[in-house]
Amino acid sequence: MGSLASERTVVGWAARDPSGHLSPYTYTVRNTGPEDVVVKVLYCGICHTDIHQAKNHLGASKYPMVPGHEVVGEVVEVGPEVSKHRVGDVVGVGVIVGCCRECRPCKANVEQYCNKRIWSYNDVYTDGRPTQGGFASTMVVDQNKQYLNFDLDSVKRMRSNPSRKGWGKVWVQGNVTVEKTHHAPASMGMRMDEKRFVVPIPAGLAPEQAAPLLCAGVTVYSPLKHFGLTAPGLRGGILGLGGVGHMGVKVAKAMGHHVTVISSSSRKRAEAVDDLGADAYLVSSDADAMAAAADSLDYIIDTVPVHHPLEPYLALLRLDGKHVLLGVVGEPLSFVSPMVMLGRKAVTGSFIGSVDETAELLRFCVDKGLTSQIEVVKMGYVNEALERLERNDVRYRFVVDVAGSNVEEAAAGAPDN
Amino acid sequence: MGSLASERTVVGWAARDPSGHLSPYTYTVRNTGPEDVVVKVLYCGICHTDIHQAKNHLGASKYPMVPGHEVVGEVVEVGPEVSKHRVGDVVGVGVIVGCCRECRPCKANVEQYCNKRIWSYNDVYTDGRPTQGGFASTMVVDQNKQYLNFDLDSVKRMRSNPSRKGWGKVWVQGNVTVEKTHHAPASMGMRMDEKRFVVPIPAGLAPEQAAPLLCAGVTVYSPLKHFGLTAPGLRGGILGLGGVGHMGVKVAKAMGHHVTVISSSSRKRAEAVDDLGADAYLVSSDADAMAAAADSLDYIIDTVPVHHPLEPYLALLRLDGKHVLLGVVGEPLSFVSPMVMLGRKAVTGSFIGSVDETAELLRFCVDKGLTSQIEVVKMGYVNEALERLERNDVRYRFVVDVAGSNVEEAAAGAPDN
Repeated sequence: MGSLASERTVVGWAARDPSGHLSPYTYTVRNTGPEDVVVKVLYCGICHTDIHQAKNHLGASKYPMVPGHEVVGEVVEVGPEVSKHRVGDVVGVGVIVGCCRECRPCKANVEQYCNKRIWSYNDVYTDGRPTQGGFASTMVVDQNKQYLNFDLDSVKRMRSNPSRKGWGKVWVQGNVTVEKTHHAPASMGMRMDEKRFVVPIPAGLAPEQAAPLLCAGVTVYSPLKHFGLTAPGLRGGILGLGGVGHMGVKVAKAMGHHVTVISSSSRKRAEAVDDLGADAYLVSSDADAMAAAADSLDYIIDTVPVHHPLEPYLALLRLDGKHVLLGVVGEPLSFVSPMVMLGRKAVTGSFIGSVDETAELLRFCVDKGLTSQIEVVKMGYVNEALERLERNDVRYRFVVDVAGSNVEEAAAGAPDN
Repeated sequence: MGSLASERTVVGWAARDPSGHLSPYTYTVRNTGPEDVVVKVLYCGICHTDIHQAKNHLGASKYPMVPGHEVVGEVVEVGPEVSKHRVGDVVGVGVIVGCCRECRPCKANVEQYCNKRIWSYNDVYTDGRPTQGGFASTMVVDQNKQYLNFDLDSVKRMRSNPSRKGWGKVWVQGNVTVEKTHHAPASMGMRMDEKRFVVPIPAGLAPEQAAPLLCAGVTVYSPLKHFGLTAPGLRGGILGLGGVGHMGVKVAKAMGHHVTVISSSSRKRAEAVDDLGADAYLVSSDADAMAAAADSLDYIIDTVPVHHPLEPYLALLRLDGKHVLLGVVGEPLSFVSPMVMLGRKAVTGSFIGSVDETAELLRFCVDKGLTSQIEVVKMGYVNEALERLERNDVRYRFVVDVAGSNVEEAAAGAPDN
């Protein structure tokens, strides 16, 4: 295994400018490194962020850009030091493909909060190349080593102890990390840090179903887990019923919560209650209904990506209730301080989820028989899908059938890239 | 003990109108009920809230109004069912003198979040009388029973069981509470709820020192405790160095935290570091210093009672950092959502503290040898003290020596009330 000598040519669908229009684009991916996993993309979900990036809404887009960060694929090659993945495995790749491994978030296994995280696309990898996402035939992703962080004194003691066995080379780069650590005594203040950017898709989960879990799914699962909101019987509110919101209803229901979908109109009432299984539906402009629901919710998962008032929703929270912002809103959100002081409420936020949490969510979905609600499309439909997503015309996530779209063959007949 | 037959005439210093000017006022307090404790006031701290109430800043003031809610006094009489307090004990009374005992906050022993809490002054007691505060010779305060809440079926079973012994009368008022519960089997799903509005001042704490702990002190202690911010080594910021802020520095230092005082000017640097023991001092207008301190704090205790930006302070917090609002600010505070999403930070708030937390703080202060920094004044100086407090001209809390001011004798020569 491991074709270290030659770069691999792949075809993706790339945006070339802020129009965001995608078309076939041929490029090379790096040689397969010792810890790399080569993934043939099967399915890739379409997230709202893909629109923001492709159209340069955030002002930092570099072209050509192959979007896509809800990637499910099949392992077609692994580097020589990869032990956890084998050719033929079905795996997932999410929003992040690298991190510094040295900062507090990395050490706490929440690498999504690492300031040096590397995005799956529209970013620069450690080798200086642009990263490219999952609307492509193939991705090469670092499965990463197992690292062990411990204090320098311990390293010095071990280095000076000729009887140590089973240790590989010691790297001293900023923090101290030691490779091949299975033999290291835990009693020496050492801690295993496993960070992998390739997550196994468990048996029992269809690959196209798994795709939206890698971003939309873990984005709601992570805060529920982190903020201690997993116990059955909790009462939750889901604000906004898009790709993330619909996963919110499904995950919260699977946890045994009483779920209220909160919306600006009654338009989605039937689908929320009948299709997704929400227990209640609250229209935010209905003052009587909002007053009746005051002081009733343990949390609100707020997926709304545009400016909106917070105080009407803070009033719905009861003692110690949490309002979790998941949507990037550039215009300031506001509230008067007594709205959080009286009831010790919190306005907080969360950002995707860790690889560990993603793996946890995948197992949770298998255990609970939880599926996402998706519309599978071919790659040739991706521009129309992006347009429909932009006007919220999808129930609730587009997933591109990349492998079924023969992108490499199609590219052969496409105009020059 | 227990003079149930006659009302007691007391003298306080009351505001009569929104000028907020205090002058002697003679009134009666209720007959000493079975659970009441009669307290001869020794000392009473002056809180910023006293100004807001006396001057009707919140629009709900009723006159005459005797302010004061940081009350330390000596027990001079107890009702016949009071077992925990004896004549001669030194006790404290804080912001709250009643609650519903039935709501979720009450059952969670955080009665400060009960929507039916009764304030120590400018409120109406259960008997329909106005409550009056601690700038007075005497207060009568419910020490409260021990209540036991359990489900109705359990009550029915016990009522129908002629062998039950040791039970007093059963009250059925909304929720079911049973008096005299020491003999009740815990196995029947019952839970002891102790709510007392009189807290013992432990030996080793001077009464004038204890006064500011009952509001300012517990206001900072409660969120540190509740949000899990008590471990040594944490890094905290204290925003605003008034009565509450100075207690924040002292309590956080006593917990073993690294404490940064954050202020709009360098004016208080010497007192923060030299007098109060802060480890660092940060001027919020110093862009370089603020940038250098980015991503460094576990929490910020925000005591600023006027509008201020939040984003510069959110940038100081590191992963999972908490910005705790303690000041009532009527103008909305705002931030863009990525400021909390990236780093999973929270903007939250807290409101005074529970009686349980107050008792805990008092013990903590004795254990740590922690004292407040106060200026003790006589009652005749109270109006000047209120004026000085309004312009932040106090280091850091005024405490009125009520017993040493002979308010009853002074009132004999005062103009007609």
